[in-house]
Order: sequence, then C-alpha cells, then structure tokens
Amino acid sequence: MADAITLDFEALAREVIARCQTLARFSEDVAGIRRSFLCSAMHDCHREIAAWLVPMGVASRVDAVGNLRLLYAAAKLDAPRLLIGSHLDTVPNAGPYDGILGVVLGVSLLSALKGRRLPFAVEIIGFSEEEGVRFGTPFIGSRALTGTIDDETLNLVDAQGISIREAIRDFGLNPMEVSDAALREDVLGYVEFHIEQGPVLDSFCRSLGVVEAIAGQSRLEFTFIGRSNHAGTTPMNLRYDALAAAAEWIGTVERHAQNTAGLVATVGTIHAKPGAVNVIAGDVRVSLDVRHQNDADRNAAVDYFVSQAENIATRRGLKAKSNRFVNQPAVPMDPFLINEVGQAIARAGCEPFRMVSGAGHDAMIMGQKVPAAMIFLRTPGGISHDPAESVEVVDVAKAIECGLHLLNQLAFTSESRARAEVEFERVTNHAESGSNA
Amino acid sequence: MADAITLDFEALAREVIARCQTLARFSEDVAGIRRSFLCSAMHDCHREIAAWLVPMGVASRVDAVGNLRLLYAAAKLDAPRLLIGSHLDTVPNAGPYDGILGVVLGVSLLSALKGRRLPFAVEIIGFSEEEGVRFGTPFIGSRALTGTIDDETLNLVDAQGISIREAIRDFGLNPMEVSDAALREDVLGYVEFHIEQGPVLDSFCRSLGVVEAIAGQSRLEFTFIGRSNHAGTTPMNLRYDALAAAAEWIGTVERHAQNTAGLVATVGTIHAKPGAVNVIAGDVRVSLDVRHQNDADRNAAVDYFVSQAENIATRRGLKAKSNRFVNQPAVPMDPFLINEVGQAIARAGCEPFRMVSGAGHDAMIMGQKVPAAMIFLRTPGGISHDPAESVEVVDVAKAIECGLHLLNQLAFTSESRARAEVEFERVTNHAESGSNA
Repeated sequence: MADAITLDFEALAREVIARCQTLARFSEDVAGIRRSFLCSAMHDCHREIAAWLVPMGVASRVDAVGNLRLLYAAAKLDAPRLLIGSHLDTVPNAGPYDGILGVVLGVSLLSALKGRRLPFAVEIIGFSEEEGVRFGTPFIGSRALTGTIDDETLNLVDAQGISIREAIRDFGLNPMEVSDAALREDVLGYVEFHIEQGPVLDSFCRSLGVVEAIAGQSRLEFTFIGRSNHAGTTPMNLRYDALAAAAEWIGTVERHAQNTAGLVATVGTIHAKPGAVNVIAGDVRVSLDVRHQNDADRNAAVDYFVSQAENIATRRGLKAKSNRFVNQPAVPMDPFLINEVGQAIARAGCEPFRMVSGAGHDAMIMGQKVPAAMIFLRTPGGISHDPAESVEVVDVAKAIECGLHLLNQLAFTSESRARAEVEFERVTNHAESGSNA
Repeated sequence: MADAITLDFEALAREVIARCQTLARFSEDVAGIRRSFLCSAMHDCHREIAAWLVPMGVASRVDAVGNLRLLYAAAKLDAPRLLIGSHLDTVPNAGPYDGILGVVLGVSLLSALKGRRLPFAVEIIGFSEEEGVRFGTPFIGSRALTGTIDDETLNLVDAQGISIREAIRDFGLNPMEVSDAALREDVLGYVEFHIEQGPVLDSFCRSLGVVEAIAGQSRLEFTFIGRSNHAGTTPMNLRYDALAAAAEWIGTVERHAQNTAGLVATVGTIHAKPGAVNVIAGDVRVSLDVRHQNDADRNAAVDYFVSQAENIATRRGLKAKSNRFVNQPAVPMDPFLINEVGQAIARAGCEPFRMVSGAGHDAMIMGQKVPAAMIFLRTPGGISHDPAESVEVVDVAKAIECGLHLLNQLAFTSESRARAEVEFERVTNHAESGSNA
C-alpha cells in the first residue's frame, strides 16, 4: 500500500463526485434526473465513462442488455477477474449518486492503480437496469449476468407497449446475444459500492458499512371488510368500521416490528371505501412490506401479522383477507469477502460497521451466483431517490481508500494462492517423479 | 279517534308503500333511482302526487324553489296551519323511501281524514332539495321556507355550470319569487316522518322513534406530517411514519367515542402519500366527523381529538394540523311536539322510543324557525341510500295511526285553546265593560 499513502484521496473523491454530477446531466427529463433502462441518455452516459478510461487502455463494450463493461487486464493472460459494479439507471426525479457512484468509484480505483497490474483482471460493470422503472421488473442488468433473463422477461412491455426485446434493438443491440452477457467461470467475486439510502450510518456517524446480507422481503395486501354505514345514524356499538380495524392492526404491526430485532414492517398504502367524510368505511385495503436478514424470522413475522389481522377482524365482526405477492429470500454476502472488506475499512481508519441492507441491490442478484460483497457509504439524512440525495467527500475518500486496500488484500491472497499452487505443483510433480523413479 | 278504529291501517300502509314505489319510477337514470333538484323527473313526481289529492279538493302549487305544496283547508278561514313534509329529491342509486315516505304518508293522513276538517289547515310539503347532490349544498327546499336562500346560493353552479337561478328558470319557475316561498306567521309547527336510516330502532325491535334533537355536527380534516422514507433501509426507531401516527390516533378517536354516551366519531377518508408499498408514508390526511345532541359535549370531544392528534404527533416527532370546516349546532325538537308525538305513538300501541337523529333532515332547518317534530320509522338493517332500502308494512301502519292520533290531539288542543281564548276575551270584555260601567 505504498501507493495509497501518496494518493490524495479527498482529491480523488472530489473527482468522483464531480463525475457523478456530470453523468446526472444525461437525463430523459429537462429538469431533474431520469435515466431509465435503454433510454437514449444512456448512450451519452456510456460514452462519457468510456472516455475516462481511454488513457488507461481499458477496453469498453456494451453487452446485449445494455450493461457497460470495462475490462482492466490482469498482469497475466487467463487470470481470473474481479467484478466491481453498480447500476447506471435511475428512478424519476433521482439524485446523482444512487448506483452511479459505485460505477464511477470503480473507475477511480482503476485510475488510482496508475497502471499497476494485479494478479486478476478487474471488470467494472455499469448495470443498465436495477430500479424496475421502465418495465416494472428490476435487476434486468444483473440478471443477464446470472443468466436468468428468459423469453417471458424479454416480452415484457413498457407503458408505450415496447417490449424489452424491441428496446434492446432500438438501442442498437441484439436481443439474440443476451446469453453472451452471462458470467464466465473466471469470476473471483463481485464488489459493489453503494450509498446506504438509509439513515443508519448517518445516525451512528459512520462513513462506511459492511453489508452482511441483503434482507429477504415479503409483500402482502390485506383487505378488511366491514360494513359501510352512515356516520351520523350508526351508534359506535353497531359499527363494523373497516378503517378502525385496519388502524388497530397497523398499530400491532408497528409494535411487533419495534420489538423484534432486525425486523422492519411497513404499511405504506391504504385505501378506504367508499371514502366519504360522513360514511363509515366498509372496505379497507392496505399493503404490508416486511424485511429481515433471517428468512425464518421474516416468515414468522408475516404469519403473526396475518393472524393478528384475522383476530382483530373476527373480534370486531369483520372479515380480513390477505394475499402474499412477494416472498424473496435473504441473500447473504460472501463470508470471506465480508471479512476482507472489514479489514480494508479498518485499514482506511474506519470502524467496519456491520449492517444488513434492507433494500435490494445488484449484489443480491450477483450473490446468488458468485461471492459478493457490498460496501455502504453514509447517506446524509438517509435521503435518496430525491434530488437532495448527497454524499460527503470524506466518506467517498474513505471508500476509495478502502477499495484500494481491498484490491491489494485480494492481490496478496491471489498471489499467495498462486505461489502456493506453484509450490503444490512442484511438490506434487517432485513426488510423482520420485514415485516413478 | 272513533274514525281511526274503523280504518285498516295496514291497507293504508300498503298503499303508501306502493305509492313510494310508483314515485321511484320517476328517475333521471334508466336503472336505479336518482331524482336530483329540479330535474325533469320531478315534474312527473309532482303531477302524480297532486293527482292523488284531486278527489279531496286539495289545491297544489309548486313554489319558486320547486317545493310541492298541497294545502288541505281548515274548518274555518284564517285558521293557522300545520306543516307535514319531507323531501322528494334522492341521492344517486337511492332507495324508494328516504324523504319520499314522509310526503306520501302526509298525503295518506289527509285521505284518512275522509273530508273531516280540523281547526287548522294542513300543508303537505314535498321539499325539492335536501340531499345536496346537484349543487353540493343541502336543504335548499327547506331553506327557502326559512328565508335563508340568498343571492350567493342562487349563483351556485352544478357540474354542468348551470346556476340554481338558471335551474329554477329551466324548471319553469321564477327565481325572483323565491322569497314568496317563505313561511308565514300562521304556522303552528312542522312534523316530519322519515325512515331512521340507521340501525337503532331495528336493533331494539321498535317501529317508531321520537326524535329529541338533530345532533350537532363537526367536520374536520387532519394532516399528519412525518417523513417519507425507504421501507427497507429505515429501521423502526428512525421512522417518522405518518400512517402509523394516524392509525394510533384513529384508535384513540374510536375508544373515546365508545366511552362517551351519545357521541359518534368517524374517520371515513384517509389518504397516505406517497402511497407506495415500499415507502414509509410521510403525509397522511384523514377526515373526522363528530356528532352529539349536546353542543358542549361535541365541542369538548373535538378539542380532545385535536389535542390527541397533536400529542401523538409530538411524541413521534411528527407534526399534526387540523382544519375545522363544519361546525353545525344541534337543533332540539319542540318539547311540546315531542310530548304530543310520544303520546300519539303510545296511543298507536308502541313504546315512544326517544332518540337523537345523527343525520341532518329538513326538520333541522325548519326547527330553527317553527316548532318542529320528527318521527322515525324503523329501517331494516339500517340500510338506506341504497336500492335495498326498505320499510315494514307494520311500521308504516303504526306511523299512519300515530299521525292521525297526533292530528286529533293537536285539534283538541287547538279547539281547547280557541275556547279558552273566547272565554278569556269574554271575561276580559266583561271586566272592561264592568270597569266602564
């Protein structure tokens, strides 16, 4: 790490931030950032990023689902590769860092290597689609790498009736080549830097977090069915008020989540019918989002919430129905990489704060196929998916420093393993020759 | 009441019900009942009702706001008049009895008199507008009688941009004559028969109820302002969940109303923003409808609900705002008429069940100017404002019987008073002559 000591990390961080802001200009909207899957602004974004790497002789290509792929060669041919990436698409009215920061930071790490070659190649990936905005289905970019894009997915259509297949063609790519985007066997692992998009690091005054797992997620819809009635003529004891029942249940959900370590449960939507000031609600629909890093705990919580809805409804003479429409298991990050990231954060002078990602990320998809790790950067105020989304220079500097330590650690491990393999071969060959002798 | 004993009240009741069903055919909609203020179906309705009274020599007219007014003359000229009425307009997709029953029942009482003249005239009024559907403002019919229709009201426009003034003209009436519809000084009182539109009489197995007061009403809008945040990345202890706060408050409102005699409080509408499954609601708006027969109790409840919203919000680090947009005092019914109605119900063989009307009725407007009384008829299942709205033949029969007893009682009182006045005059004149002598 002699190199690292001579680097001005804050200057690099400022360059990263400036580059994120440059990319923010490539938007579908005149005011505000919006860059959805395979929009034409994505071409400009790719061109800009590729240009930054030209001086380093890095080859860039765009795979058949529109992922930008930049390969920094290893010291030797046929070396394995480490992937560093995140996504380049945004939500509407986005901030400049969600996803983009991870790609730009990867590019910055390559620059910081100053031409030094590692025992593995480093492929920076700018995923084309993570947010699920255009086709209502997220992670199309990373799913192409894990080989889970099927014909059904390619036939999904956007609001204009354009299919993913057509969108790929319109972008100048060939949908027949999607399978070529898939991961090869030479991948060591996947590392993603990403803003936390939550308030935890900020509330603990930490720059960086090591993600242990991406939480599993359940989504349900509940309906409370009571009886719609006149608000003036129906005494309290003769009511079957679906909104009062739903409100009681929302309180139960909140209390249970508050009292269960690591659980988050959210009722984010509510619709009361008929919805008039002077009419008791007879029908209330609410959504429920439940997340936990442990699938058994999550499923137990969901079962509890369903039984509570039924109990509350029954006690009040109502009915409750529920419908589970998402049941996504937790994805643990790779223990070896978690440990390496933790050491790299410590070497950068920060405490390796371990945490769970409550949101889905490309690392969740990648982690199903290859060892994956995520490093979170503090998100001031937890504000994301908003033009006010920001990062601190100091945190980006620490993330770059952590990234270089991580590359060095992995290079050392890789070289040790290579030396050990050479030694093993030598000893084995010697033994074999010996036995032949 | 020798007459009453010979009458077949159930046959009269069946006629009343059949007539309500006949009037239900006069609708703006091909399927379902809808008869809004000054629609052309109202002409058919007026014509039909007037035709029933032709054999009795009852004069019919339509006043300048479209109220049907049918005058059954008294035994003598210059006698005072008793008003019996309700409304002829309906909500969309209405039942056949709300309002209409009170008018048809009044007509039936006149028939049952079989030509007998009372010491007061009886004016049956079919109010043109009570529901507030067409112009968003209710009680236009009865307000014309109490002289509270001003220019501002006449300038209100419907969804087609037609003003009340124009609608009156389109119906063939003269908006300049609205003031002529106002009550004269000869009115003894106003009596309204109406279905309860609530479940109370049904739950107590009672046919008829004596209304003691029309409950006062407050309507408010509350806003809980928290912080919209990611449902996955925001731990429970770092949330400012506006929906959870609103839910807690809804529970408080319900419990307080359940524990306060005569109070009803309803949260009928709720809107959570941004309203996504995976986003904590940052902004929740709810409505509150509070009713009580005692204004002080109602205002105390409203104050409590406002303070509870503020307390809950403050404890959670949120803000709560409230806006009171309706504050309508209770209208007590006339004590003398309440007593007379109670006796008439008892004479009809029912228990005079005293109750409060939680809904507004024309009697609420009329009661501000003249002694008013209301008699409720049981509403099976409390179902109203619905095609399934119904009445029981036995209850309508009891209502007719009660109505005839009431007319007889008032006639007796009126005659006694007339005799007493004659006696007073005689005595006074005698005294005066004596003193002059």
